[in-house]
Amino acid sequence: MKMNASEAQTAALRVMTRCDALAEISESADGLTRVYLSPEHLRANACVGEWMKAAGMQVWQDAVGNICGRYEAAEVGAPALLLGSHLDTVRNAGRYDGMLGVLTAIETVQWLHEHQQRLPLAIEIIGFGDEEGTRFGITLLGSRGITGTWPESWVTHPDGNGITVAQAMSDVGLDSTQIHRAARDVNEIVAYLELHIEQGPCLEQENLALGVVTAINGARRLNCRFTGEAGHAGTVPMTHRKDALAAAAEWMVFIEHTTREQDPQLVATVGTLSCAPGAVNVIPGEADLSLDVRGPQDDPLEALLSTLLTQAEAIALRRGLRFESHEYYRIAATACDPLLQQALSHAVETVQGRSVSLPSGAGHDAIAIAERWPVGMLFVRNDRGISHHPAESVMAEDVAPAVQAYLQAICHIAEQNR
Amino acid sequence: MKMNASEAQTAALRVMTRCDALAEISESADGLTRVYLSPEHLRANACVGEWMKAAGMQVWQDAVGNICGRYEAAEVGAPALLLGSHLDTVRNAGRYDGMLGVLTAIETVQWLHEHQQRLPLAIEIIGFGDEEGTRFGITLLGSRGITGTWPESWVTHPDGNGITVAQAMSDVGLDSTQIHRAARDVNEIVAYLELHIEQGPCLEQENLALGVVTAINGARRLNCRFTGEAGHAGTVPMTHRKDALAAAAEWMVFIEHTTREQDPQLVATVGTLSCAPGAVNVIPGEADLSLDVRGPQDDPLEALLSTLLTQAEAIALRRGLRFESHEYYRIAATACDPLLQQALSHAVETVQGRSVSLPSGAGHDAIAIAERWPVGMLFVRNDRGISHHPAESVMAEDVAPAVQAYLQAICHIAEQNR
Repeated sequence: MKMNASEAQTAALRVMTRCDALAEISESADGLTRVYLSPEHLRANACVGEWMKAAGMQVWQDAVGNICGRYEAAEVGAPALLLGSHLDTVRNAGRYDGMLGVLTAIETVQWLHEHQQRLPLAIEIIGFGDEEGTRFGITLLGSRGITGTWPESWVTHPDGNGITVAQAMSDVGLDSTQIHRAARDVNEIVAYLELHIEQGPCLEQENLALGVVTAINGARRLNCRFTGEAGHAGTVPMTHRKDALAAAAEWMVFIEHTTREQDPQLVATVGTLSCAPGAVNVIPGEADLSLDVRGPQDDPLEALLSTLLTQAEAIALRRGLRFESHEYYRIAATACDPLLQQALSHAVETVQGRSVSLPSGAGHDAIAIAERWPVGMLFVRNDRGISHHPAESVMAEDVAPAVQAYLQAICHIAEQNR
Repeated sequence: MKMNASEAQTAALRVMTRCDALAEISESADGLTRVYLSPEHLRANACVGEWMKAAGMQVWQDAVGNICGRYEAAEVGAPALLLGSHLDTVRNAGRYDGMLGVLTAIETVQWLHEHQQRLPLAIEIIGFGDEEGTRFGITLLGSRGITGTWPESWVTHPDGNGITVAQAMSDVGLDSTQIHRAARDVNEIVAYLELHIEQGPCLEQENLALGVVTAINGARRLNCRFTGEAGHAGTVPMTHRKDALAAAAEWMVFIEHTTREQDPQLVATVGTLSCAPGAVNVIPGEADLSLDVRGPQDDPLEALLSTLLTQAEAIALRRGLRFESHEYYRIAATACDPLLQQALSHAVETVQGRSVSLPSGAGHDAIAIAERWPVGMLFVRNDRGISHHPAESVMAEDVAPAVQAYLQAICHIAEQNR
């Protein structure tokens, strides 16, 4: 059961057209913004639901507003392989982040439907209503509906206009007391696959259309501060200074060097820095900086973070300064299932000659799903890794092999679960 | 002709009391602010003029608002040794920066007067009306009146309320068309001495009350920018980044290290830094930072700056970034006269056992005066080097030997010019 090149091209062009069509469903005319439980959310659901139906699927919207479709297995009522991604966007978004995964999934089912093929597993597709967290500041609301892991507090969480999740649900005809009905029984689903744009430059640099995700990076975020002593930039000799910015600079050089040396899959970023008093002729007495570290495995990530913080303390001590840090965000790494990775890699090798494995630096619905089911992810190259931006771009020439590989992996996994 | 310890103590206490009295002459009740051509300026002049008269001096206010006094030489009409400092302040100032130099000078004359001593040189004292530039943003208006080097444009320069220098002069009874009358003939003055608080920590660290200034540091100030490429903090591997802040950090470490190694009298400071876009999860694409370098001699200073900028270019090149810099402020170094330094050092050795020579990191009236006459400066220790702040503090125990040494040096220099 293989999709030929001409079929793949047709599928890819339809995906591109549908990405463009969904990009029109926006709260503003001059850019793409589509948030959870908005009128645009429901319009996108309706649109995607129609495409699912055309692919031979039973379609429903679940209790948290995800659009769902099922393509029945050879044996009616068999467990399902779940494919999906999200339909919501950041503000002024690109048109592929999320949507590409839903629309390519529909193409795989479309092909099965057109070739009247039924697999040992049902194929279900889900377009999650919220992954980005744009409206409520809380994320993965769609996928956590499926896993049944909404904290109770979420329904009273307000958006920027003070409208709670419960009110917003009610406004679009959903009932916040019925959220639990979105949760799927663990036995109904065998595994979850997600196709997504890379949002990074690795595939482009490898000159490959497709890659297989090993893990979704865990992350830690900290606010850090060096406190020294402000002083006159003209009168305090270099050897008598307690320059907080100079200490921060020394640490930043260490962060970059050590992270680079330790493991090519680890990243560490100082994205913000400010110093006080902040005048050209005053030695900085205080330097505030952020630290963001990520990696595909928690242990090496934790070890790196510990090395970095130990060094910050050492730098502060040697210079007679104080260092303090506060971790305000932490998410564990999500490993992709080895068998699913194998199936995806094999399919990718078939369509593009070789496969490459890489971690995902960004978060995805698969993080939530992995709490309950094995997950696998397929990445598609995107232009310069630019994402969350109108310039986000993928090529139809890459989407064609993506659909081919996706279908092949799906069939293979379904056979394994016969 | 030496002031004994008891006389020095009396003089020091009077200086401290007078500093307190001048600190009361402020535009605001809750802090010391006294700006050029304000009612407080004229009140301070009047007050200092009275103290000069009590020390046996002829007193006048000159055409730019400096308060001046002359203690006649043994031979009437002989050239003068000029002593001085400034009576204006920054906003919310300390009470010693400037004033200490005027009041200690008065004590040296007071002693000569009380002992009925006349020297081969007249002693003139000047309380400059503007050194800080607080009101008009242009500096050294008092001392440049004496040297006759006011640019024509200064009289039309406005303060924050749109009042020009000319108007402000007129408001206090001065005539801006007569500014040239403040200029002194080069033959009327032999040399200029200024006593000032150190505004730095060196004397405190040497555990000495007094030190002799070798030079007033030259300075360069630049705005600098590294431009790289913003990117996703999770998806761009360390080796593919063009992180502007990481480049700036590498440069800052180089700046600190190189300046320290090159010459203990050179200082370089990055006082401000900001990066864009400036989010915890975004690699900085742009880093803006200031650079302030200072040193007592222009050539080594220029060499250091050139080394630093060359390295910035090299860092940018190696990382695939751009570096640019714009020098927006430059002042040449002012050397103190060797003979005056010798006289001051000898006097300092006499009163405190040993002398120490140090450059001045901050600017002073002597910068302007040095364009016309030899200058020498004597520094007095101040608490933790804190200046331009209400916490600015000197000890009466340090002022006593300061007056002793000042008088001794004055007498010595006057003898040399017999």
